[in-house]
Amino acid sequence: MTDPARPLATPVPIVSLTTDFGERDEYVGVMKGVILTGAPGTQIVDLCHRIAPQSVPQAAFLIAAAFGHFPPGTLHLVVVDPGVGGTRRILYAEAAGHRFICPDNGLLGRIDQQAGLNRVRQVTNDRLFKPTVGHTFHGRDIMAPVAAFLAGGGAPDRLGDEISTEAIVRLRGWQPRRREDGRIAGRIVAVDRFGNLITNIDAHLLGPGLQTTPHQVFDIDIGRRLTTHLHTAYEEALPGKPLAIIGSRETLEIAVNQGSAQAHYRVAAGDSVIVQPTPAAAAGAIDRG
Amino acid sequence: MTDPARPLATPVPIVSLTTDFGERDEYVGVMKGVILTGAPGTQIVDLCHRIAPQSVPQAAFLIAAAFGHFPPGTLHLVVVDPGVGGTRRILYAEAAGHRFICPDNGLLGRIDQQAGLNRVRQVTNDRLFKPTVGHTFHGRDIMAPVAAFLAGGGAPDRLGDEISTEAIVRLRGWQPRRREDGRIAGRIVAVDRFGNLITNIDAHLLGPGLQTTPHQVFDIDIGRRLTTHLHTAYEEALPGKPLAIIGSRETLEIAVNQGSAQAHYRVAAGDSVIVQPTPAAAAGAIDRG
Amino acid sequence: MTDPARPLATPVPIVSLTTDFGERDEYVGVMKGVILTGAPGTQIVDLCHRIAPQSVPQAAFLIAAAFGHFPPGTLHLVVVDPGVGGTRRILYAEAAGHRFICPDNGLLGRIDQQAGLNRVRQVTNDRLFKPTVGHTFHGRDIMAPVAAFLAGGGAPDRLGDEISTEAIVRLRGWQPRRREDGRIAGRIVAVDRFGNLITNIDAHLLGPGLQTTPHQVFDIDIGRRLTTHLHTAYEEALPGKPLAIIGSRETLEIAVNQGSAQAHYRVAAGDSVIVQPTPAAAAGAIDRG
Repeated sequence: MTDPARPLATPVPIVSLTTDFGERDEYVGVMKGVILTGAPGTQIVDLCHRIAPQSVPQAAFLIAAAFGHFPPGTLHLVVVDPGVGGTRRILYAEAAGHRFICPDNGLLGRIDQQAGLNRVRQVTNDRLFKPTVGHTFHGRDIMAPVAAFLAGGGAPDRLGDEISTEAIVRLRGWQPRRREDGRIAGRIVAVDRFGNLITNIDAHLLGPGLQTTPHQVFDIDIGRRLTTHLHTAYEEALPGKPLAIIGSRETLEIAVNQGSAQAHYRVAAGDSVIVQPTPAAAAGAIDRG
Repeated sequence: MTDPARPLATPVPIVSLTTDFGERDEYVGVMKGVILTGAPGTQIVDLCHRIAPQSVPQAAFLIAAAFGHFPPGTLHLVVVDPGVGGTRRILYAEAAGHRFICPDNGLLGRIDQQAGLNRVRQVTNDRLFKPTVGHTFHGRDIMAPVAAFLAGGGAPDRLGDEISTEAIVRLRGWQPRRREDGRIAGRIVAVDRFGNLITNIDAHLLGPGLQTTPHQVFDIDIGRRLTTHLHTAYEEALPGKPLAIIGSRETLEIAVNQGSAQAHYRVAAGDSVIVQPTPAAAAGAIDRG
Repeated sequence: MTDPARPLATPVPIVSLTTDFGERDEYVGVMKGVILTGAPGTQIVDLCHRIAPQSVPQAAFLIAAAFGHFPPGTLHLVVVDPGVGGTRRILYAEAAGHRFICPDNGLLGRIDQQAGLNRVRQVTNDRLFKPTVGHTFHGRDIMAPVAAFLAGGGAPDRLGDEISTEAIVRLRGWQPRRREDGRIAGRIVAVDRFGNLITNIDAHLLGPGLQTTPHQVFDIDIGRRLTTHLHTAYEEALPGKPLAIIGSRETLEIAVNQGSAQAHYRVAAGDSVIVQPTPAAAAGAIDRG
């Protein structure tokens, strides 16, 4: 996909930031200072800083859904790092023309499934780090200066040795799948500001030609059951009523029109979602939520 | 105001963003990725993402008060869009040398009253949109790519046909006015972090030469009554006492010195505010709150 | 440190922003508009907007800990301004190759102790301000336009007269110190998102060669007592157990591994912290929290 002799880059270097630091403290701002110190003129974009603290599954899902909306060559820095100060590795990787820096804790798994990782490297060259590296903030002391090195045109082979894609850490239990009994099993990976339940069940898992089969009905089990077809807009449901929709991340989403699905179902990120496709006739094409 | 042969622009293109997306999710970050994909080097400024969910009146007030603090030529993208996925139009407009992209739901009304809209267009050219447009996130799929097109120097006449300013949607019941009985009627449009009650009652509605008539007293009815002159600094009131002031948006603001007017009056955005100018002598020039 | 004939600058001008405005309102966004109006192309970085309302001590600590992570020449604008509209001065100062604009209320004290202020000026040249200056928002009307003037290459001597470093306002009661009885007295200056208690007790105050004396034990009094050595990573304590660590700001920090020290100790910013170094033998090298 890329010329091996040249590192990926955008005309103005762009770094996206995804962390669980929130906005309360100066942690994100300080990382930006470090990046700009090493690579003046870099354009830094806050992708999300409200990953639930230390939630690798949520961050892995979010970055996989979001990175493709940025220009090719963008460097995505993902700092959700429950193992900071321990022995976990730090990774560099490329996928679909984009670049990633993050701890080796499962953050890149979904990107690998979607787009295929390549040129994965373990970041070990401490001459690129801050002169003093503490034990509590590797986002600032290691990952931000490495991001600056790359944003400034540095070559990835300076970071450390290439490693096999097989060697990186994978999350267990978070991959959505179609089971042998025909049901599709996944999880809620995030609840958004509006109370929508974002699942990791990709649209294509629900069946081929889904969007053009409006009468397909699904039994969705998220603690309580919702029997419904897939809607195409929130407003298709009555106010206060739940609905299923393929959301903006191309996965199954449970919403309540003009309300909060989280309040309706009292579920949380991490909870299981089981979907059973049902013939429309059997279900009477009636929505029951 | 502008050369009709040339689109408005700043030396480095600037796009301001105003939404009701909050900071919890990646929605804003993804929109920035889309803008930078279409228009590398654009400078994107977060104006506000905490518009109350789907509150068109609050956003309409805020953008009208804020846009003039940006450089002429700035493109202001306002995504408060309760009708997403439905049939509402998307608009492009110019006013006072600034440019605006937003849904047609009343967001531009106050700007029109203040500065006069011109060159209003309905955005219909779907070749400028994302290749696939979903039903849930037109900020990302339509408005961000259109903003990028303009930020990159694209001509507004490519967006769609010009329409009459008369044809755009207007909010009803939100325009402050001086009534026949001499009272001025408006509303609380926002409550800020400090609990200050921001009204949409422009300073000039309270009377001519206001700032130089310190003894003019007002009866202000916001559920409870506050009788006071206009202060020029919060500190002029005793700690814990309410006061009226012309705030930084050039409208009437009710505050409590070192306290929260929202907690004091237990009111909310949308609530009515009625102001009656009173001769200073009659009121004894005494503040009662 | 700097050539007196040339103002400090970065290749692309950078302005960092630290305020107590939060993210709820458009105050920060409007300040950015003003800066970009005066100095197009300036790179503006949000350092922190969640300073506790009007907490000068927290902001003074934060900016002193953070500024060095930015490129030399960065202009740091700190708007925590309880005296807005009153008679407090506005200052320009330089320290360690960085530049600062803020109200004269103690914000620069800790920087002066750490790095030494120089070229302090009182900002009085109102031709650099907004044409109309209100009484409620000097961040927008005075400090942002002055920042733009400097970011655009303007000379500091245009701002106003140089004043003595001795003449600036200092906070009282917030300087950490080693008392005559050998105890070190300081305060909690911030509680971060994770519930960590950030103190202003610099690592060097705890004793020389601290990091290489792992058996040094401390009695830490923060309402309840914690007797412990200094940890080097959060994970060294058992889950749910408190620990002391030199945090990322190079000061003493009290944390709970996988928990919240704030919830554990029920303390708040401003509370006192007293540390007594204890021979390891006497304490039995046992952690008690």
